[in-house]
Amino acid sequence: MSDVFEKCRSWKDYRIAKATGLYPYFRAIEESFGATEVQIEGRRVIMVGSNNYLGLSADPRVKEAAIKAVERYGTTCSGSRLLNGTLALHEELEHQLAKFLNRESALVISTGFQTNLALSSILGRHDIVFADRQNHASLVDGVRLSFATERKFRHNDLGHLEQLLQQASEKEPNAGKIIITDGVFSMEGDICDLPRIVALAKKYNARVMTDDAHAMGVLGEQGRGTSEYFGLEAETDLVMGTFSKSFASLGGVLAGPQDVINYMRHKSRSVIFSASMTPASVASALKSLEIIQAEPERRARLLDIAEKMHNGFRAMGFDTGVSVTPVVPVHIGDQVKCFRFWKALHEAGVFANPVVPPAVESGHALIRTSYMATHTDEQLDRVLDIFERIGKKLDVIPQTRPSTYTPVKIARPHTFVRGNQASEKWAAASAGELSQQGFSLDQLFEAVETLTWRAANLQPKDIRELGRMPRKLWARRAHLPGMLLEKGANLFIRNGREDRS
Amino acid sequence: MSDVFEKCRSWKDYRIAKATGLYPYFRAIEESFGATEVQIEGRRVIMVGSNNYLGLSADPRVKEAAIKAVERYGTTCSGSRLLNGTLALHEELEHQLAKFLNRESALVISTGFQTNLALSSILGRHDIVFADRQNHASLVDGVRLSFATERKFRHNDLGHLEQLLQQASEKEPNAGKIIITDGVFSMEGDICDLPRIVALAKKYNARVMTDDAHAMGVLGEQGRGTSEYFGLEAETDLVMGTFSKSFASLGGVLAGPQDVINYMRHKSRSVIFSASMTPASVASALKSLEIIQAEPERRARLLDIAEKMHNGFRAMGFDTGVSVTPVVPVHIGDQVKCFRFWKALHEAGVFANPVVPPAVESGHALIRTSYMATHTDEQLDRVLDIFERIGKKLDVIPQTRPSTYTPVKIARPHTFVRGNQASEKWAAASAGELSQQGFSLDQLFEAVETLTWRAANLQPKDIRELGRMPRKLWARRAHLPGMLLEKGANLFIRNGREDRS
Repeated sequence: MSDVFEKCRSWKDYRIAKATGLYPYFRAIEESFGATEVQIEGRRVIMVGSNNYLGLSADPRVKEAAIKAVERYGTTCSGSRLLNGTLALHEELEHQLAKFLNRESALVISTGFQTNLALSSILGRHDIVFADRQNHASLVDGVRLSFATERKFRHNDLGHLEQLLQQASEKEPNAGKIIITDGVFSMEGDICDLPRIVALAKKYNARVMTDDAHAMGVLGEQGRGTSEYFGLEAETDLVMGTFSKSFASLGGVLAGPQDVINYMRHKSRSVIFSASMTPASVASALKSLEIIQAEPERRARLLDIAEKMHNGFRAMGFDTGVSVTPVVPVHIGDQVKCFRFWKALHEAGVFANPVVPPAVESGHALIRTSYMATHTDEQLDRVLDIFERIGKKLDVIPQTRPSTYTPVKIARPHTFVRGNQASEKWAAASAGELSQQGFSLDQLFEAVETLTWRAANLQPKDIRELGRMPRKLWARRAHLPGMLLEKGANLFIRNGREDRS
Repeated sequence: MSDVFEKCRSWKDYRIAKATGLYPYFRAIEESFGATEVQIEGRRVIMVGSNNYLGLSADPRVKEAAIKAVERYGTTCSGSRLLNGTLALHEELEHQLAKFLNRESALVISTGFQTNLALSSILGRHDIVFADRQNHASLVDGVRLSFATERKFRHNDLGHLEQLLQQASEKEPNAGKIIITDGVFSMEGDICDLPRIVALAKKYNARVMTDDAHAMGVLGEQGRGTSEYFGLEAETDLVMGTFSKSFASLGGVLAGPQDVINYMRHKSRSVIFSASMTPASVASALKSLEIIQAEPERRARLLDIAEKMHNGFRAMGFDTGVSVTPVVPVHIGDQVKCFRFWKALHEAGVFANPVVPPAVESGHALIRTSYMATHTDEQLDRVLDIFERIGKKLDVIPQTRPSTYTPVKIARPHTFVRGNQASEKWAAASAGELSQQGFSLDQLFEAVETLTWRAANLQPKDIRELGRMPRKLWARRAHLPGMLLEKGANLFIRNGREDRS
């Protein structure tokens, strides 16, 4: 007889990653030094793995606004916006956001994740959603919670989108249609092709929504996001943003026509059945919005930093792919090597994020870095130096710098770039054409298990059969099971790498 | 050709409620006076519509903890727990919660809503969820986001649950099974029948999970919730709680076996794809947990207050139904009357929540009140007085108090009560056997629209035909459309009431 919990008990990945010392997640931050540096396991590291793009989470003005809100309204609203969790401060934030975003109305929701879930309230049984395959998980879940049909188009492949729209207009002429896309894609840092999306939406009578989580505060002269950047605000029906990135808070916003936003306000389950944003979070977002509007130099600095880092990596021979934004992904390829790269970075004093399948295609594991307007050039140079050293050591880049590289294009206001030309390697990896050539984590785990079993039954001839294991281990055989586990893992990681060269 | 937005444009309910002056939602709180009183539209009112059960949102110690966290860590974590949004403070909260709840492990998530969504990660294609029909919306959505099958049993009807379990054990013997129920039901204030649920779970080899959003901090000697209250902590596999109620914060917790919680930590989309709880929210919850453990007198006071209010209402002839908790619902019946009751309360200085279909059965509209340990007896007496005055005016209670009433049973530690005996009226309403006898909001809107149309084409004989409208209106006919809309609505509301008497 089966058990709901059985799948949790037989789950291997976590145990492997822990056993091999390559587990990179849930790293606890012990201290923050102005957000650009943090302390983890007693070590001070440079943070290039955060979405705090404008560095406002540590801004004294934002902190002060949060503290004043706690003093005045307490630490929570204790209920939903609908019933008892609306402060005048929530309304003020909505009013200011609607004005900022040039929209009739705005609705703020407790998290960015729930903001995209709120979408489900306007998607009915007779609607069709056309969604980019790389859209954020919360958009996927928002559509799943609705009764609408979903049609996914290949990432930024507008020919495919048109094909799907055309089919729908022939077969389901009475369906409501909406195209939903990330503005800036969070892992690869490229931008949606909004001009062509808007043209297709007009042709096929569809609505358009952009998820500007990584674009709001970053793209466009005023920082209003993707539609401002392309000069297409009037043509984009709904815009979504999150506060945990540029807005130094937690929450999200949906902005658009008054009647649509009002409907969502009353009908979205993630709004009416969830406690509202805390007073401190509302105040932080409100103060950040003020700063975003008053200090465009933060955006300029952020894009300068993005350019510096992209080109710095490219000059060393790293591949930063299609990104044109402060999301700077560094292609590694193999998943286990990516974890090793991450670990070496951490030990050298840099905090970045390993991104492995299924978040990216198999064979396209990458180190995702992202930057803050408040990073200093000294910090950034140090990050580049460390990447170069590790990249050489792990054979990700050549030992000597390539003689030339293609400089990055950056999405500065009025440039209208969407993505850089991908290298052949990047394009193949991104399209899923590079299979994982090394050991998968599952294979690795099988190997480690076998070694562990052998260790438990160890005989001198087993040691000899294991071959590459140094003889002096025999002298320390009392400690062997744990040690063998680790050595075995390293052995297989090394073999995995060597097999591919 | 259809439009996704059309449903928003043709939505009537909001316009009716606004036109009739009976719109009760999204009331903006302008000031808070220690949480028990707030200012709304310039009026100071007593707050009995919050879930701030222990009154900790205004506690100086909790506020100070939040402020210190902002100073030390900033206003946000800028990312997910998985990648870059884990503070040592999150781990401390998880450690303390696991200890408090007597569980191997605990996972904290950004909102209570997303905590229940996280459940979907352990529910697979071959699992069956047995769910109480009145479970919270977020549990419903959590199951919908999974690939499991859902079987709903009638509210607290354990015979029905057993029937479903038996069918499943015959037809799908290899399915994983889990029974999921609210501990305290949020609208009617009754408690699940955990002893029988646990017995059925044993008999049919199912797991058990309770949503203790309204129970944690409230039920049990130590405030650990439903399973502590029934002495069944070892028999309950998973427990969920929220921080926006007793914990003066925003967020939620799942606690249970280490491997299950660890699996959820890595596999739940609402965890890994959502920014983490803010430093201020983590610190507030942590300080509240400390106070919950150190000051059991708050729980005792809260239950004393619950008893006082239930019996106070009952002595006047109000029906507080099955509730045995500080959720004190007052049955009104008709939806429009419920809005009128809510409005009169508000004008008299009491903030409570109108709960109308579909949140409750048709004909079972109620005013939901809930209390804080920090309410004073003076505040509570004033609430009772105002309810009595309005109840008489709107014919909800008799003009003279009934000679007797059945005192409430309250869920104090070791009492093992689950619900009070429902009155006939309550039971019928709760079972959906009272249809809405007055005008529905839709009918009302049709009437108001007709009147508005007439107003636009107004002739003296129309006024006469309208009959009950005072003649002096004619003198002010320039203002008529707006006024007529309101008068017309009142007329129909009055008729609605009279038709039923």
